[in-house]
Parts: sequence; C-alpha cells; structure tokens
Amino acid sequence: MNDADKPTTDTTTTTMDEIRFAVLGTGGIGRRTLDVSKQKPELTPVAACDRHGVAIDHDGLDVDELLSATEGNIASDGGTTAVKESGENKGVAASSQAVSTETPIDDVIAESDAIDAVLIALPNFEHDFIPRVADRFVEADYSGVLVDVLKRSRVIGMLEDRTDAFESAGITFVCGAGATPGFLTGAAALAAQSFVTVEEVEIWWGVGLKSGYEDNRGTVREDIAHLPEYDIETVREMSDEEIEAVIDEHDGVLEFHDMEHADDVLLERAGICDAEDVTVGGILDVTSDEKPTTTTVRVTGTTFDGERGTNTFELDDATSMEANVNGPALGYLKSAVRRNRGGEYGVFGPAELLPGF
Amino acid sequence: MNDADKPTTDTTTTTMDEIRFAVLGTGGIGRRTLDVSKQKPELTPVAACDRHGVAIDHDGLDVDELLSATEGNIASDGGTTAVKESGENKGVAASSQAVSTETPIDDVIAESDAIDAVLIALPNFEHDFIPRVADRFVEADYSGVLVDVLKRSRVIGMLEDRTDAFESAGITFVCGAGATPGFLTGAAALAAQSFVTVEEVEIWWGVGLKSGYEDNRGTVREDIAHLPEYDIETVREMSDEEIEAVIDEHDGVLEFHDMEHADDVLLERAGICDAEDVTVGGILDVTSDEKPTTTTVRVTGTTFDGERGTNTFELDDATSMEANVNGPALGYLKSAVRRNRGGEYGVFGPAELLPGF
Repeated sequence: MNDADKPTTDTTTTTMDEIRFAVLGTGGIGRRTLDVSKQKPELTPVAACDRHGVAIDHDGLDVDELLSATEGNIASDGGTTAVKESGENKGVAASSQAVSTETPIDDVIAESDAIDAVLIALPNFEHDFIPRVADRFVEADYSGVLVDVLKRSRVIGMLEDRTDAFESAGITFVCGAGATPGFLTGAAALAAQSFVTVEEVEIWWGVGLKSGYEDNRGTVREDIAHLPEYDIETVREMSDEEIEAVIDEHDGVLEFHDMEHADDVLLERAGICDAEDVTVGGILDVTSDEKPTTTTVRVTGTTFDGERGTNTFELDDATSMEANVNGPALGYLKSAVRRNRGGEYGVFGPAELLPGF
Repeated sequence: MNDADKPTTDTTTTTMDEIRFAVLGTGGIGRRTLDVSKQKPELTPVAACDRHGVAIDHDGLDVDELLSATEGNIASDGGTTAVKESGENKGVAASSQAVSTETPIDDVIAESDAIDAVLIALPNFEHDFIPRVADRFVEADYSGVLVDVLKRSRVIGMLEDRTDAFESAGITFVCGAGATPGFLTGAAALAAQSFVTVEEVEIWWGVGLKSGYEDNRGTVREDIAHLPEYDIETVREMSDEEIEAVIDEHDGVLEFHDMEHADDVLLERAGICDAEDVTVGGILDVTSDEKPTTTTVRVTGTTFDGERGTNTFELDDATSMEANVNGPALGYLKSAVRRNRGGEYGVFGPAELLPGF
C-alpha cells in the first residue's frame, strides 16, 4: 500500500477503455484473474485482499511479486480455519506490497473512488455473504462495477432485492460471471438466437482437477454441497478431512444432476427461456487432469419458421475449468464497466450482457 | 405514410428499451426482420422502403398488411431490372401504408429524427454502395444506429474510413450483423474466451435453400460472386438466366472455400485473432431444404495454462439460414442502440458487441 498517502484524484480520470480493478479473495479464481489481466494493458489491478491482508497500488499492483509471495498460500475453507502461511505474514500479507489488516474489504472500499470494478472472488458459503459484501459498497457510496462468480440460483434473488440500492448508488452488479454460470450461460444465450422460443437448455460440464485441486478447494467444497446428501450449511461446517472422506467415498469422481446453478434464473432474466427449462449437471474428477466428460451446452428451440432444432456449444477437453473462468470473468467485467459508464445500474446476468433479440 | 403530417416530436421520447427502427430493402432479410420484430414489443418498425416505395408510420407499421400486400414482390437483382409487380403498385408501394417515390432512402432520412435504428438490408453489389448510403445519413445529421448485413471484408475498411464522420454525427454503425458475418462471428468471439491466444477460426456453413430460393435470390447472387471464376462486378451484370445457368452447371450445389467474408477483419477488430487466421467456406444447395453440411464454428487456441484446444459451436441442421439471420440482426441492432444511447459512436463489428476479455 505504498501509494496510500498519494492523493487518488490524480488517477481517477480514465479513458473509456482503461479499467482499474480490485479483487476480493486471492484463491484460485482471484489469483488467476490477476495473472491473466497482465495480458491486457487496459486492465490495471489496483487492489487485492484476503481475510488478513490487503495490497493497494493505484498505479497498478506488481502481480508477479504478489502471486509469487503468496504461492500456495490460500484459504480453502471459507473462513472456518486459519489460512496457511508462507513467510512471516499470512496470505496476501506475505507480499511486500501488502499490509496486514483486520478489515480487508473496508480497506478496499476506502479506496474505491479510484476503482472502476471489483471482482468478488470469495467463496459464498453463506447465501447472503456476497449480497452483504455488496451492501457494504452501497453504504460507502461506491459507484462502479461489482462482479461475482457465484453459483447458486437463490442468491440472484437476494441481489435483485438490492436493485434500487444499486441504482441509487450507481452500481452495476454482474452476478454469476464465472464458467457456469457465466461462460456457459452466455453460450446458451448466443445459441438461442436461432430460435423464437427456447424449450430447453442443458448445461453439462466436465472438470478434471488433479493438479489444480489445491488451488480450488473452495470450489470443490461448494460442488459437494450440490450432492443430494449435502447442503451448503452442512458442507460449511465440515473439516478438510471430512471433505476428503466424501471425495474418497466417490473414488474421486463426483457426478451431479439438477444442480442449483444460477444459469436458470440468469437465462430467464435475459428472456431466453423459463428457469425451469434449464438443467445443469456435470462430473468432477479430482483424480485426473483429463476431463471425465465433455463440457457441452445444448439449446433446443423452435425457429421463426416452425423448425425444431438443437444448437450445441462444446468446449475442448483440453480447456481447464480455470481457463474457462478467467477470460469470461474479465470479459463480463469489461462489459459491465462499459454499461456503468453509460449510466446503466442495477443487477445484470451474463446473458444480459450479450446481444440478444 | 398516413402520419406524415403529424409532428414527430410526440414520438421522439422513448425509454431505454424502446426502439423505433426502419428497414431499407424489403427482400428476404428485410421482410423477415419486420416479421420477427412483431415478437418483441420494445421493437417498433416505423419505416420500410424499396426502390420504388416507402411506408412510414411513427406509431408502428402494420407489418402483416405490408408483408401480405407485397408477398412475392421482391427485387432480386440489385437494381438492374424492374421489380415484380402485384397489384397496381410496385414493391412496397403495393401496401396501403406506402406511397410511391423516386427517393425512398431520402424519404426515410427525412423522418430519421424519430428513428433510433436503421437496418440496411440492401444487396451490396457495388462495394461502396452501403458506405454511400451511410454517407447520406451523415449528411442529413442523422444520429442513431445503422446496421448492415454485408459480407465482404473490403467494405469494412470503407466504413472504418468514415469513423470520424460517424462519431461527429453520433452514428453507431454495426457492420456484418447477419448470419456470417454476424451470428457466427459472435459465436467465434464467445468460443475464443477459453484462450489467451487464438491461432485459427474456421467457419463452415451449410444452407439448403430450395423453398427459400425465390426470397433469397440476392443472397445467392452474392454467393456466386465468391466462386473462383466470378467476382462481384461480373455477377452484377449477369441476368437471372445466367445465374440459373451457373447453378445448373453445379447441379444446384455450390461449394465455397476461402470466401472473402468479413468475419476475418471483424474478429481482428475485436482483438480475437489476426484476420489471416480466419477461414470461411460452405455449401449452398438450392435443390433441397436440407442443409448439405452442418454449420460449424471451430476456434483453436491456447489457454493461459498452455493447453491447446478447439472449441466448437454447431447449429442444428433444422435451423435455416433465414432463422440464423433474423435473431442476430435484431439482437445486434438492440445492442447498438444501447451503445448509441451511451454515447458510443463509430464502427463496430458483431464481435465487439460481445463481452470479451
């Protein structure tokens, strides 16, 4: 936070294309987003935090230093146990650009006048956690973009309840902007364009997560909550050992059907189809980096001339879940900044950010 | 044009979602766009014209009347022969809402203060025809959206040359917003999101156009110009009989490779890949309504973690070329109006209207 004393007004003027963004949470998604953003000069990461540390530099964080200082230094449990340590500080605080703090999100909020967009890459073990984080930005009169990568349908309603508050504050909130919901929701919206009515959207994903497992423990934990025997509350209370036991019971391969993934309500919001016509399922294999099944989006509908058909979008098995989150999350973030600068506030799903008839 | 005497100021105030649009050209694409727009209450068609007639009603055209009055009444040759007639008037003029005119485009331009978007659904037999149409809107101080469904790469450059003029006038010009370029360009941009570098985009289309042939003679003529033995100048001079002879020579099935389709420059504009890495080809069968080959977009690239893969988007064979133009054209039009109202002017391709990293 070596620029904390510098007046931020110098850096608040940007062109349409320049985006200064913050990342809340430096687990797998947060870290990779910082990393991938280096490829785009118009994206400047200016803040990152985890539960114990915050790094802020309005001229742009040194992402390489931050990531290497905090390598393997990730909280995996959403808050119930201490983060791992490397070096004398915990988590983000291990970076020379960071300071320890008890109030990481407030510290970012305090600097948010000079932040265009915030990626909330925090696990959402309590349904209202991300909505409550958004409330804090509203209370601080933040005007800008908030993006999350949440999965559960029910959270969308909680965010929608805040639409008036977001509109008053000037916040453009994009929810579900990861892989699914996110990338695949957008693919469904695009594939739907052949049709005047859509009767079914089937999203089916495969994830091979052997070498990426350590970096994505939070995601795996959230996935387990989708198994019929578990829910988000029970999973939150489970120890890492108990999570491992569930994985072992399934020989490392977990199959999911009828998941509560927000693709359904997000496609309904965009006018593509009814939420009940969307199904999401998939297979997670933590024993291999190979995908156990091909990630596919199938959209079935009827054309203006009365023909029924199914358009299909398939991701190559070589593209990892990680690869399919990074690009879309930053892409949706950029679209949201454009909307925000155009004066469009409130709640948006990925499908609403695509051109749609 | 029964509202011509009415002050247009009553109708110039709209909400963010309401769009009053005009269609230049009432061939297959123009007619179907008018037809499909009926499904969306926020889209109000207020003007339509062909070479000899213009219909304008700022409260909304009666699309059913217009289409039934002009059924089978379509110019197919881009201007070299007379349109067919049904009833005592020619073309659009056969509608009770229309009047005959020698200056159809100027008549629409004269009313353009109350028009948010104009779909230019005219065949582009001279490369600079659509750019010159745009010039006329610029000269008339039109501020709003222009959308075309052109195909040729070289036209994009002519439009880009006009960027300053569009920006001064307040025009948001979307080029290549049909099926390909258009729908498939957008699909390629979306499929590219797994990758940090894209090495190849392959667009391959199939069109079965037996029963739709009469309505799409202009499109077929343009396609023939892509055969190695022909070019746009020679095809423009050919009679309908000569076009038929070419089709017969190929037994009604025309196969195209390395087409000059603007997907290439439009993907480059959006930063997806180099234009030279995009190939477009396909098969047109005018003897059957079945597609002779499946329309497919393949995007090959490398992920942030160094994996190489190919994402694939496939349209069901049951979706006609027509179905794959209507939705995207109107979807891009709506996106462009949003941009225009947000103050973004200049030239945009379909891929630039999608969220993109």
